[in-house]
Amino acid sequence: MLTFNQRLKKVCTDKNNRLCIGLDLDNEKLSNPSLSYMEGYIKDIIDCTIDHCPIYKINFSFYEKHGSAGYKILEKIPDFIDNNAITIADAKRGDIGNSSKYYANSIFALLNYDSITVSPYMGNDSIQPFIDYSDKGVFILCLTSNSGSKEYQQLKINDKELYKHVAQNASNLNMDDNIGIVVGATNNAFLNEVKEFSGDIPWLMPGVGAQGGDLESAIKIEGEKGLSIINVSRGVLYAGNGTVEDIRKASLEYTKNIREVL
Amino acid sequence: MLTFNQRLKKVCTDKNNRLCIGLDLDNEKLSNPSLSYMEGYIKDIIDCTIDHCPIYKINFSFYEKHGSAGYKILEKIPDFIDNNAITIADAKRGDIGNSSKYYANSIFALLNYDSITVSPYMGNDSIQPFIDYSDKGVFILCLTSNSGSKEYQQLKINDKELYKHVAQNASNLNMDDNIGIVVGATNNAFLNEVKEFSGDIPWLMPGVGAQGGDLESAIKIEGEKGLSIINVSRGVLYAGNGTVEDIRKASLEYTKNIREVL
Repeated sequence: MLTFNQRLKKVCTDKNNRLCIGLDLDNEKLSNPSLSYMEGYIKDIIDCTIDHCPIYKINFSFYEKHGSAGYKILEKIPDFIDNNAITIADAKRGDIGNSSKYYANSIFALLNYDSITVSPYMGNDSIQPFIDYSDKGVFILCLTSNSGSKEYQQLKINDKELYKHVAQNASNLNMDDNIGIVVGATNNAFLNEVKEFSGDIPWLMPGVGAQGGDLESAIKIEGEKGLSIINVSRGVLYAGNGTVEDIRKASLEYTKNIREVL
Repeated sequence: MLTFNQRLKKVCTDKNNRLCIGLDLDNEKLSNPSLSYMEGYIKDIIDCTIDHCPIYKINFSFYEKHGSAGYKILEKIPDFIDNNAITIADAKRGDIGNSSKYYANSIFALLNYDSITVSPYMGNDSIQPFIDYSDKGVFILCLTSNSGSKEYQQLKINDKELYKHVAQNASNLNMDDNIGIVVGATNNAFLNEVKEFSGDIPWLMPGVGAQGGDLESAIKIEGEKGLSIINVSRGVLYAGNGTVEDIRKASLEYTKNIREVL
């Protein structure tokens, strides 16, 4: 049986792609803001991209915004994807013991997502309950793409910055080959420094496109043994007039650019 | 109009109490594990304690565990409390710009909670969208009650530990008097050190009771100008045989102990 990181690599190899479409769909930007329309639209986006897109990241805030009705859509998305791609629940959870256990239970066992993003602030015992689902993946926030990453992540502890401690720790936690880190592609100057500490665990990289991150350096940084996943949200979701054809076209354009670097 | 922190203080003064009941209700520990029973039970717990309990903390993991059906209960709890106490959505959220905005919108505007817990790891721009709801409260994780707090929070950056930077930053962010911090009561040795940096912003203190934190030092640390909120979950929820009478008795016992210190 493949580990989570092997599965992730396999779907990327099979589709010859590293694109992760961020399903951060804002209903107010749609021609019809109703949740049933939003749900159908998400299914359409998936259907028109899943032949070439290996990974989808679902940012929970865009769904929780609608309360339990939005949560119901979160429950359906893994069915739409139907194991034809890897799902990342971008929920940024993290709490003490039992609470993290229940978050893990919710997102992995009940909602059936393949992986999750978590915050490291509370330490390893807050992350462990997620890791314990050894066939599921855990992406630990390391160096994020926003300007606030300067405030704590880039402060120096002893000889190295906090984000390097997190990268190293993530690599150490990777006993079941199911750990990755989140590294903003906007932090170009620091990518090599993260790489020094993260070993070959996969990187989930938001920030390419709208936020200004460079695609080529994002892909190349992880080399042959590692795996960079390129998350694009707005650049695909709101391409052209937002028709299914426009979305597919934008997604294929990113795919083409990625393949050229690969 | 009162600020959030003034409202918090007023309800504590009016009820002569600092107790925060953590509604971390595990349905599997109930005589009937159905969600409708759980919902009724939560309402009963609130009804039998709200005459003396000023604050309720709702840990979202215990509800998200049940998916959208659990989320529906989260939507009802503020109605059960009906402005007769302050609600804390213990959701530990935090994300970049728009995502935090949507989380804030969900928990404050849609679900109508009075306040939330957030993680500081991504920096101030990840917290600001919550703070912008200036009549709502934001409790920033500072020094948590679990052993993992050693791993990052207690590491030294320049002259002081990360948790002190967070405490100071939280105090600086308190322009609209709506910021607090989460400080585990289990960290007895460090309470005075946090206090040096946090000014008079309120502290939400889990860890008294089951986790071994000391009630008296937790209350006294914040002095007259500050405000310590004592969170108790298991010690109340599963008291005696878990009848409404047992719960009320346990809650009144904690209240009595708190009043003795006050």
